[in-house]
Amino acid sequence: MLYIIGLGLGDEKDITLRGLEAVQKSQKVFIEAYTSLLSFGISSDGLSTLEKLYGKSITVADREMVEEKADDILLEATSSDVAFLVVGDPFGATTHTDLVVRAKKLGVDVKVVHNASVMNAIGVCGLQLYRYGETVSLPFFTDTWRPDSFYEKIQRNRKLGLHTLCLLDIRVKEPSLESLCSYRGKKQYEPPRFMAVSVAIEQLLEVEQMRGENAYTEDTTCVGFARLGSEDQLVVAGSMKQLLEVDFGPPLHCLVIVGDTHPVEEEMLDFYKLAKKQGQA
Amino acid sequence: MLYIIGLGLGDEKDITLRGLEAVQKSQKVFIEAYTSLLSFGISSDGLSTLEKLYGKSITVADREMVEEKADDILLEATSSDVAFLVVGDPFGATTHTDLVVRAKKLGVDVKVVHNASVMNAIGVCGLQLYRYGETVSLPFFTDTWRPDSFYEKIQRNRKLGLHTLCLLDIRVKEPSLESLCSYRGKKQYEPPRFMAVSVAIEQLLEVEQMRGENAYTEDTTCVGFARLGSEDQLVVAGSMKQLLEVDFGPPLHCLVIVGDTHPVEEEMLDFYKLAKKQGQA
Repeated sequence: MLYIIGLGLGDEKDITLRGLEAVQKSQKVFIEAYTSLLSFGISSDGLSTLEKLYGKSITVADREMVEEKADDILLEATSSDVAFLVVGDPFGATTHTDLVVRAKKLGVDVKVVHNASVMNAIGVCGLQLYRYGETVSLPFFTDTWRPDSFYEKIQRNRKLGLHTLCLLDIRVKEPSLESLCSYRGKKQYEPPRFMAVSVAIEQLLEVEQMRGENAYTEDTTCVGFARLGSEDQLVVAGSMKQLLEVDFGPPLHCLVIVGDTHPVEEEMLDFYKLAKKQGQA
Repeated sequence: MLYIIGLGLGDEKDITLRGLEAVQKSQKVFIEAYTSLLSFGISSDGLSTLEKLYGKSITVADREMVEEKADDILLEATSSDVAFLVVGDPFGATTHTDLVVRAKKLGVDVKVVHNASVMNAIGVCGLQLYRYGETVSLPFFTDTWRPDSFYEKIQRNRKLGLHTLCLLDIRVKEPSLESLCSYRGKKQYEPPRFMAVSVAIEQLLEVEQMRGENAYTEDTTCVGFARLGSEDQLVVAGSMKQLLEVDFGPPLHCLVIVGDTHPVEEEMLDFYKLAKKQGQA
């Protein structure tokens, strides 16, 4: 049996009892490292906290390992219980569909243990989840690569009065350019990077300036989130211009561009507005 | 402190360790009854399972109680720890924003413990969560009330190639018509009702027939879900016509109308297609 277990958003205590039971009866436990370890604050220390609470040794599976060794992991799951731990929900902002597809093709039974993900936890700011349009991803711009396909999506959502969740880029264990260009030697990796709310807004405003179609402006109300679901999460609402000035602190960040609001949504947003105070909930 | 704690989707074991800790240190524990007790299968028995696992007595708070006695609950939370348990995520498909707004106005500290909700757990079928458009709600049609504002939303999503989550009506503790018409006496309630996938599809096709704009047809691919997140969940993909014939069993049900699909989405959906087998994951 392959258990794919969501860990939720905060720390080791956000696992469910069902998830913990599955971990404890598994012979092998892996944790995915390639999308959002940053959000979990898992250093070598963090991992031992997990291992201590779960009573199991855990193997960190980075992107290469999952892609290259998936069959080994799945082979083990044919004859014993294997747990694969995933930050957030297994099918939340990132997807582990590919692993499930491979497992099913090999005839391995799969059980999914759900948990909170960014996609529902953003509800904490008071904007109704059913009033969101399509989610967009904002990638880090480089000198030569400044893709802006998110612009039409945001524009469309806003025309319909819908809110837009912007998932912000995370770069973990990216091979360095030098390493990609050399034929031999050990792969070198870039240091991890995550996009801050302020960078996201700068990029958004740069694209608006180029397009000039008023999909949004620096006065458009947004909600910035940092460390959503953690004890020290920060949620601040304000105009793009205002949020540019806010230091949201450590990762992960995400951003919601607000559409039309109902009175209850408005009341809730007020608690997070800068003029009042930088609320937490 | 008021803790608003998501219980997740399955049973008592879907609470997180963080949630369980908060329940155990609370002086008073309430559970919301008015939206989705059905989904949790909480009878008088079910409740004792929760109480046994949590080691706490739990007061069921129905809609009237929450609306009429919210201030009493919140008053207690000013001087002690009160836990308010919610099926799914506190800000998932249903929202408890109003309770939070009241709490904040009274100066009561609020902590939210997130969990899985329908809004992210539907990811299990393999359709990417960021490729969903606006969510729609399908209400039970009556002889005189057949609202169809969902039609434009589905149409819009499909034109953009996006998937649509349809939340299906739940009626719990609705006052009976007789009771609403009589001036005195105890309120009488209708028996609880939940909308099955087949009823949802019948209503959808009725509206399509009236509108005739081909937003979808009986050949449109959908995914039906029953008891999502539970041990005995059922996920079946097929055309509307095919799904009409599937007995999804006990509540709760929901339905996804599929938009354009990517290859990996397609591969995953295949596992759930009727022709193959009625897969579970």
